[in-house]
Amino acid sequence: MFTNLEHLGLAVHDLEAATALYTILLNQEPYKKEHVASEGVDTVFFRVGGSKIELLAGTTPDSAITRYLSKKGEGIHHVAFEVADIRATMARLKEQGFMLLNEEPKRGADNKLVCFVHPKSAAGVLVELCQEIV
Amino acid sequence: MFTNLEHLGLAVHDLEAATALYTILLNQEPYKKEHVASEGVDTVFFRVGGSKIELLAGTTPDSAITRYLSKKGEGIHHVAFEVADIRATMARLKEQGFMLLNEEPKRGADNKLVCFVHPKSAAGVLVELCQEIV
Repeated sequence: MFTNLEHLGLAVHDLEAATALYTILLNQEPYKKEHVASEGVDTVFFRVGGSKIELLAGTTPDSAITRYLSKKGEGIHHVAFEVADIRATMARLKEQGFMLLNEEPKRGADNKLVCFVHPKSAAGVLVELCQEIV
Repeated sequence: MFTNLEHLGLAVHDLEAATALYTILLNQEPYKKEHVASEGVDTVFFRVGGSKIELLAGTTPDSAITRYLSKKGEGIHHVAFEVADIRATMARLKEQGFMLLNEEPKRGADNKLVCFVHPKSAAGVLVELCQEIV
Protein backbone atom coordinates (compact mmCIF):
# COMPACT_ATOMS: atom_id res chain seq x y z
CA MET A 1 0.00 0.00 0.00
CA PHE A 2 1.30 3.44 -1.02
CA THR A 3 0.68 5.66 2.01
CA ASN A 4 2.40 8.93 1.13
CA LEU A 5 4.29 10.85 -1.55
CA GLU A 6 7.30 10.76 0.75
CA HIS A 7 9.68 12.91 -1.29
CA LEU A 8 10.61 14.25 -4.66
CA GLY A 9 14.28 13.99 -5.65
CA LEU A 10 15.79 16.82 -7.70
CA ALA A 11 19.15 16.36 -9.43
CA VAL A 12 21.27 19.53 -9.21
CA HIS A 13 24.73 20.50 -10.40
CA ASP A 14 25.65 22.79 -7.52
CA LEU A 15 24.16 21.74 -4.20
CA GLU A 16 25.03 24.97 -2.42
CA ALA A 17 23.50 27.17 -5.10
CA ALA A 18 20.39 24.96 -5.37
CA THR A 19 19.99 24.95 -1.58
CA ALA A 20 20.10 28.76 -1.56
CA LEU A 21 17.57 28.88 -4.42
CA TYR A 22 15.11 26.45 -2.83
CA THR A 23 15.48 28.18 0.55
CA ILE A 24 14.14 31.32 -1.15
CA LEU A 25 11.56 29.51 -3.31
CA LEU A 26 10.10 27.46 -0.42
CA ASN A 27 10.66 30.33 2.03
CA GLN A 28 12.28 28.08 4.65
CA GLU A 29 15.61 26.57 5.63
CA PRO A 30 16.42 22.90 4.88
CA TYR A 31 16.17 20.63 7.92
CA LYS A 32 18.91 18.15 7.02
CA LYS A 33 22.02 17.57 4.96
CA GLU A 34 23.25 14.03 4.48
CA HIS A 35 26.04 12.36 2.56
CA VAL A 36 25.09 8.92 1.20
CA ALA A 37 28.41 7.28 0.44
CA SER A 38 26.86 4.13 -1.03
CA GLU A 39 25.09 6.19 -3.73
CA GLY A 40 27.82 8.80 -4.22
CA VAL A 41 25.52 11.70 -3.42
CA ASP A 42 25.17 14.66 -1.13
CA THR A 43 21.58 15.45 -0.21
CA VAL A 44 19.68 18.37 1.32
CA PHE A 45 16.09 18.01 2.57
CA PHE A 46 13.22 20.48 2.90
CA ARG A 47 9.77 19.71 4.31
CA VAL A 48 6.57 20.71 2.51
CA GLY A 49 3.48 19.52 4.35
CA GLY A 50 3.81 15.75 4.80
CA SER A 51 6.33 15.43 1.95
CA LYS A 52 9.97 16.36 1.41
CA ILE A 53 12.04 17.88 -1.35
CA GLU A 54 15.44 16.19 -1.65
CA LEU A 55 18.17 17.99 -3.56
CA LEU A 56 20.78 15.55 -4.89
CA ALA A 57 24.28 16.25 -6.20
CA GLY A 58 26.72 13.58 -7.30
CA THR A 59 30.02 13.25 -5.43
CA THR A 60 31.64 10.69 -7.72
CA PRO A 61 31.90 10.61 -11.54
CA ASP A 62 30.02 7.31 -11.75
CA SER A 63 27.16 8.02 -9.34
CA ALA A 64 23.67 7.70 -10.82
CA ILE A 65 23.05 11.41 -10.22
CA THR A 66 26.27 12.51 -11.94
CA ARG A 67 25.39 10.36 -14.95
CA TYR A 68 21.81 11.63 -14.98
CA LEU A 69 22.97 15.25 -14.90
CA SER A 70 25.44 14.80 -17.74
CA LYS A 71 22.74 13.15 -19.87
CA LYS A 72 19.59 15.08 -18.98
CA GLY A 73 20.63 18.14 -17.00
CA GLU A 74 18.98 19.41 -13.84
CA GLY A 75 15.39 18.52 -13.01
CA ILE A 76 13.13 16.09 -11.22
CA HIS A 77 15.03 12.82 -10.87
CA HIS A 78 12.61 10.55 -9.00
CA VAL A 79 9.47 10.34 -6.91
CA ALA A 80 9.47 8.33 -3.70
CA PHE A 81 6.40 6.74 -2.20
CA GLU A 82 6.22 5.54 1.38
CA VAL A 83 4.89 2.01 1.47
CA ALA A 84 3.60 0.10 4.47
CA ASP A 85 5.57 -3.07 3.65
CA ILE A 86 8.40 -2.68 1.14
CA ARG A 87 9.05 -6.41 0.71
CA ALA A 88 5.37 -7.15 0.07
CA THR A 89 5.13 -4.25 -2.39
CA MET A 90 8.28 -5.38 -4.20
CA ALA A 91 6.90 -8.91 -4.47
CA ARG A 92 3.56 -7.65 -5.80
CA LEU A 93 5.16 -5.37 -8.39
CA LYS A 94 7.62 -8.02 -9.55
CA GLU A 95 4.74 -10.47 -9.93
CA GLN A 96 2.88 -7.87 -12.00
CA GLY A 97 5.81 -7.40 -14.38
CA PHE A 98 7.45 -4.23 -13.05
CA MET A 99 11.23 -4.10 -13.40
CA LEU A 100 12.86 -3.55 -10.00
CA LEU A 101 16.38 -2.07 -9.91
CA ASN A 102 17.29 -3.94 -6.74
CA GLU A 103 16.18 -7.41 -5.72
CA GLU A 104 16.47 -6.69 -2.00
CA PRO A 105 15.58 -3.46 -0.19
CA LYS A 106 18.72 -1.36 0.29
CA ARG A 107 19.56 1.36 2.76
CA GLY A 108 18.92 4.84 1.33
CA ALA A 109 19.09 8.38 2.68
CA ASP A 110 17.00 9.56 5.63
CA ASN A 111 16.91 6.22 7.49
CA LYS A 112 14.93 4.36 4.85
CA LEU A 113 14.88 0.99 3.16
CA VAL A 114 14.43 1.67 -0.52
CA CYS A 115 13.82 -0.02 -3.85
CA PHE A 116 13.71 1.61 -7.28
CA VAL A 117 11.33 0.72 -10.11
CA HIS A 118 12.82 1.17 -13.59
CA PRO A 119 11.41 4.16 -15.53
CA LYS A 120 10.69 1.82 -18.46
CA SER A 121 8.13 0.11 -16.20
CA ALA A 122 6.46 3.31 -15.07
CA ALA A 123 5.87 5.58 -18.10
CA GLY A 124 9.28 7.22 -17.93
CA VAL A 125 9.22 7.86 -14.17
CA LEU A 126 11.90 6.60 -11.79
CA VAL A 127 9.80 5.46 -8.83
CA GLU A 128 11.33 4.83 -5.42
CA LEU A 129 9.55 2.73 -2.80
CA CYS A 130 10.64 3.53 0.73
CA GLN A 131 9.93 2.39 4.23
CA GLU A 132 11.23 3.94 7.45
CA ILE A 133 13.73 1.76 9.33
CA VAL A 134 12.33 1.35 12.83
CA MET B 1 3.62 29.70 2.43
CA PHE B 2 3.95 26.29 0.78
CA THR B 3 1.57 24.03 2.67
CA ASN B 4 1.57 20.77 0.70
CA LEU B 5 3.08 18.89 -2.21
CA GLU B 6 -0.33 18.97 -3.84
CA HIS B 7 0.39 16.86 -6.90
CA LEU B 8 2.97 15.56 -9.31
CA GLY B 9 2.17 15.87 -13.01
CA LEU B 10 3.31 13.06 -15.34
CA ALA B 11 3.30 13.56 -19.11
CA VAL B 12 2.15 10.41 -20.92
CA HIS B 13 1.63 9.46 -24.55
CA ASP B 14 -1.35 7.17 -24.07
CA LEU B 15 -3.63 8.17 -21.22
CA GLU B 16 -5.57 4.93 -21.21
CA ALA B 17 -2.46 2.74 -21.10
CA ALA B 18 -0.81 4.94 -18.43
CA THR B 19 -4.00 4.89 -16.35
CA ALA B 20 -4.04 1.09 -16.49
CA LEU B 21 -0.34 0.98 -15.55
CA TYR B 22 -0.65 3.37 -12.59
CA THR B 23 -3.80 1.61 -11.40
CA ILE B 24 -1.64 -1.50 -11.02
CA LEU B 25 1.44 0.31 -9.69
CA LEU B 26 -0.47 2.31 -7.06
CA ASN B 27 -2.89 -0.58 -6.46
CA GLN B 28 -5.98 1.64 -6.66
CA GLU B 29 -8.39 3.17 -9.16
CA PRO B 30 -8.11 6.85 -10.19
CA TYR B 31 -10.71 9.08 -8.54
CA LYS B 32 -11.19 11.59 -11.34
CA LYS B 33 -10.80 12.21 -15.07
CA GLU B 34 -10.96 15.77 -16.34
CA HIS B 35 -10.55 17.47 -19.69
CA VAL B 36 -8.94 20.92 -19.42
CA ALA B 37 -9.80 22.59 -22.72
CA SER B 38 -7.81 25.76 -21.95
CA GLU B 39 -4.58 23.71 -21.66
CA GLY B 40 -5.37 21.14 -24.34
CA VAL B 41 -5.01 18.21 -21.95
CA ASP B 42 -6.87 15.22 -20.63
CA THR B 43 -6.03 14.38 -17.02
CA VAL B 44 -6.48 11.44 -14.67
CA PHE B 45 -5.94 11.76 -10.90
CA PHE B 46 -4.88 9.27 -8.23
CA ARG B 47 -4.57 10.01 -4.50
CA VAL B 48 -1.51 9.00 -2.49
CA GLY B 49 -1.72 10.17 1.12
CA GLY B 50 -2.31 13.93 1.06
CA SER B 51 -0.93 14.28 -2.48
CA LYS B 52 -2.11 13.39 -5.97
CA ILE B 53 -0.61 11.89 -9.10
CA GLU B 54 -1.91 13.62 -12.23
CA LEU B 55 -1.46 11.86 -15.56
CA LEU B 56 -1.49 14.33 -18.46
CA ALA B 57 -1.93 13.67 -22.17
CA GLY B 58 -2.09 16.39 -24.81
CA THR B 59 -5.27 16.69 -26.88
CA THR B 60 -4.01 19.30 -29.37
CA PRO B 61 -0.74 19.42 -31.35
CA ASP B 62 0.29 22.72 -29.73
CA SER B 63 -0.53 21.96 -26.10
CA ALA B 64 2.39 22.28 -23.66
CA ILE B 65 2.16 18.55 -22.89
CA THR B 66 2.21 17.49 -26.56
CA ARG B 67 5.27 19.68 -27.14
CA TYR B 68 6.96 18.39 -23.97
CA LEU B 69 6.39 14.77 -25.00
CA SER B 70 7.78 15.27 -28.50
CA LYS B 71 10.89 16.93 -27.06
CA LYS B 72 11.57 14.96 -23.88
CA GLY B 73 9.36 11.89 -23.92
CA GLU B 74 7.32 10.56 -21.03
CA GLY B 75 8.22 11.44 -17.45
CA ILE B 76 7.65 13.81 -14.56
CA HIS B 77 6.44 17.08 -16.07
CA HIS B 78 5.88 19.33 -13.04
CA VAL B 79 5.47 19.48 -9.29
CA ALA B 80 2.60 21.47 -7.79
CA PHE B 81 2.67 23.02 -4.33
CA GLU B 82 -0.45 24.18 -2.53
CA VAL B 83 0.08 27.70 -1.27
CA ALA B 84 -2.02 29.57 1.28
CA ASP B 85 -2.23 32.76 -0.81
CA ILE B 86 -1.29 32.42 -4.47
CA ARG B 87 -1.22 36.16 -5.22
CA ALA B 88 1.03 36.90 -2.24
CA THR B 89 3.35 34.00 -3.18
CA MET B 90 3.49 35.16 -6.81
CA ALA B 91 4.34 38.71 -5.68
CA ARG B 92 7.06 37.45 -3.33
CA LEU B 93 8.66 35.20 -5.95
CA LYS B 94 8.54 37.87 -8.65
CA GLU B 95 10.17 40.34 -6.24
CA GLN B 96 12.88 37.73 -5.57
CA GLY B 97 13.65 37.31 -9.26
CA PHE B 98 11.75 34.11 -10.14
CA MET B 99 10.32 34.03 -13.66
CA LEU B 100 6.56 33.43 -13.56
CA LEU B 101 4.87 32.00 -16.65
CA ASN B 102 1.61 33.83 -15.99
CA GLU B 103 1.21 37.28 -14.48
CA GLU B 104 -2.22 36.54 -13.03
CA PRO B 105 -3.40 33.28 -11.46
CA LYS B 106 -5.25 31.20 -14.05
CA ARG B 107 -7.83 28.46 -13.71
CA GLY B 108 -6.25 25.00 -13.84
CA ALA B 109 -7.51 21.44 -13.41
CA ASP B 110 -9.14 20.21 -10.21
CA ASN B 111 -10.79 23.52 -9.24
CA LYS B 112 -7.54 25.39 -8.66
CA LEU B 113 -6.04 28.79 -9.35
CA VAL B 114 -2.54 28.13 -10.65
CA CYS B 115 0.68 29.86 -11.63
CA PHE B 116 3.79 28.27 -13.11
CA VAL B 117 7.39 29.17 -12.28
CA HIS B 118 9.80 28.77 -15.22
CA PRO B 119 12.20 25.79 -14.89
CA LYS B 120 15.11 28.17 -15.56
CA SER B 121 14.28 29.82 -12.24
CA ALA B 122 14.05 26.59 -10.26
CA ALA B 123 17.03 24.36 -11.16
CA GLY B 124 15.30 22.75 -14.13
CA VAL B 125 12.01 22.06 -12.37
CA LEU B 126 8.65 23.30 -13.64
CA VAL B 127 6.98 24.40 -10.40
CA GLU B 128 3.25 25.01 -10.17
CA LEU B 129 1.73 27.06 -7.38
CA CYS B 130 -1.90 26.23 -6.72
CA GLN B 131 -4.71 27.34 -4.47
CA GLU B 132 -8.14 25.75 -4.18
CA ILE B 133 -10.97 27.93 -5.51
CA VAL B 134 -13.47 28.30 -2.65
